[in-house]
Amino acid sequence: MTLARLGQLQEQINPGQFFYVTNLINVRYLTGFTGSNAALLVSESDAILATDSRYEIQVREQVPDLQPLIGRNLPSLLLGELEISEVLVEGSSISMNAYKHLADTFKHDFKTTIGIVEKLRVVKDESEVQLIQAACEISTQAFLEIIGTVQVGQTERFICSALENQMRELGADGVAFDSIVASGPNSAIPHHEPTDREVQPGDFLKMDFGAKLAGYHADCTRTVVVGKPADSQSDLHAAVTTAQLAGRNAIHSNIKFSDVERAVNQSLTDSGYREYFTHGLGHGVGLEIHEDPFFGRAGDGKIVSNTVLTIEPGAYLQDKGGVRVEDTIVVDSQAYQNLTNLPYELLEL
Amino acid sequence: MTLARLGQLQEQINPGQFFYVTNLINVRYLTGFTGSNAALLVSESDAILATDSRYEIQVREQVPDLQPLIGRNLPSLLLGELEISEVLVEGSSISMNAYKHLADTFKHDFKTTIGIVEKLRVVKDESEVQLIQAACEISTQAFLEIIGTVQVGQTERFICSALENQMRELGADGVAFDSIVASGPNSAIPHHEPTDREVQPGDFLKMDFGAKLAGYHADCTRTVVVGKPADSQSDLHAAVTTAQLAGRNAIHSNIKFSDVERAVNQSLTDSGYREYFTHGLGHGVGLEIHEDPFFGRAGDGKIVSNTVLTIEPGAYLQDKGGVRVEDTIVVDSQAYQNLTNLPYELLEL
Repeated sequence: MTLARLGQLQEQINPGQFFYVTNLINVRYLTGFTGSNAALLVSESDAILATDSRYEIQVREQVPDLQPLIGRNLPSLLLGELEISEVLVEGSSISMNAYKHLADTFKHDFKTTIGIVEKLRVVKDESEVQLIQAACEISTQAFLEIIGTVQVGQTERFICSALENQMRELGADGVAFDSIVASGPNSAIPHHEPTDREVQPGDFLKMDFGAKLAGYHADCTRTVVVGKPADSQSDLHAAVTTAQLAGRNAIHSNIKFSDVERAVNQSLTDSGYREYFTHGLGHGVGLEIHEDPFFGRAGDGKIVSNTVLTIEPGAYLQDKGGVRVEDTIVVDSQAYQNLTNLPYELLEL
Repeated sequence: MTLARLGQLQEQINPGQFFYVTNLINVRYLTGFTGSNAALLVSESDAILATDSRYEIQVREQVPDLQPLIGRNLPSLLLGELEISEVLVEGSSISMNAYKHLADTFKHDFKTTIGIVEKLRVVKDESEVQLIQAACEISTQAFLEIIGTVQVGQTERFICSALENQMRELGADGVAFDSIVASGPNSAIPHHEPTDREVQPGDFLKMDFGAKLAGYHADCTRTVVVGKPADSQSDLHAAVTTAQLAGRNAIHSNIKFSDVERAVNQSLTDSGYREYFTHGLGHGVGLEIHEDPFFGRAGDGKIVSNTVLTIEPGAYLQDKGGVRVEDTIVVDSQAYQNLTNLPYELLEL
């Protein structure tokens, strides 16, 4: 499976050219190696993986098909003996200093590239979709199991711990990101860190969370209300839910990212909440929690089949609180499959 | 407290010069802001912090003394209106592409620097030492509470979860890094990921773990044995423990990093295990789990007072298994204070 990915990269490498992969997520994607120190040199027909002695056994187990080089100085191991060549480096991840060090140390003709492997990663293969789906199922099940136990007087931190522990209990390797549990006025903060604030009757409770499994991530948000919602809360929640559905309804393979954004924005304009939606509509999910493609940046680019994406509009009002509704979906040839199956109605705890 | 740190940076900035901070850990260190998107522009007498609308409320709460700029394009916000100036960027963290984008977009005279803020971060202030100490206490207490519950037949993963849950239970915000729980032959792998291998009588059990608290990290390793140790296990464990003590005994403010390494290496040479110690002796610990200074890289540099460091020799033998002993210490004007107080004798479970 992984070596098929290496093959896809090699199709883009010219004879005599080398691609020097230093982004560890990309190394993992291409080879399956999960160590914290590695570099990979790929030619049109070959690939060499280098890491240090801490990972000598692990690299042989995880990547039996590539003969590893083991040592402390990975650039020297991979580039030191190479005859002078054109070497492509990853401009989005290599630091200025690391690049300067390469250019000062070796006589190769270094050229920067942008997002070559990241672009391959956009289109998920079956094994990747299965892992993301499994991570999403753990996430939604954990939410369903803990949401009924939430009580007035519990702190945001307590609820956050309960949710994260439940995800681990259900088999997550860890959390995909620091969960957001935001109650009452804190719900108006799009990216809130859980505090010792105690949940009170009438609060919105906004929870943005996801499990991590075998390197893959899940991302989901639901906003519920503690007790009976005020009319203004029901109205706000309905507006965001409707906008999120408008976005999902617009999704099919080959639609422009900007068209999906337009559908969501039109819905929020119709309900009067457009000005309170202040962040991006969504992002790719995979070996990173935020990865290509990004709504906004992708503009008039088209969504391709087997992309895994979040759709996450929100509206945040200082006086009324904030609501976000987010799913992780996989786009298929027809439309999409939702990987985070949770109710959309406003849950009353 | 934090603005005092900004003042230390400003002492290094010339009139008319600007320092553009994009490394988020450095932004946090200098300002206290913990959002996931930010940039900071510092002159000899002023500082401006920029972030996006998700963090508008948070930034005002966390950094009341700096007036924030809010928007999507942080470089434009900070550098767009600035008259043409010399702008220092962080060469170790800014990517090639981000640097090119700056150089293509703005007419400023950009210069790369190396580790300016990272060097400030080496010397911890009292509040930082307190947080690291608290994180270390959670870590060691969690170890002591779970180590008595380990039983033959439990998997590495199970023990790892128990330890990590205990750290959270004791107040950790999370784990400082993915814990290493390596049993039997897996103990010979310096950086092992916990598996479903069940612990067996006679196994070494090597545990490398730490809590995270308010952004600060702890790092500790102990190796125990399940049941009665074989003579070869006692011998190996004693050799590593003796070497680690030799390292700690060498530590005092103003000693060279290389002198501490020499003490450890001599001890391991004397016991016959030098060739099996294959990684670095230790690293700084703070807002990152691995940060400046690093043994090895620091060479003949001197250890300064109020540096927080790990001392972590190990020896890894394919046939006999591996042992590592690691403490996090803070160097003071006399010698050092150990922040991870755990027994050194070979615990028999």
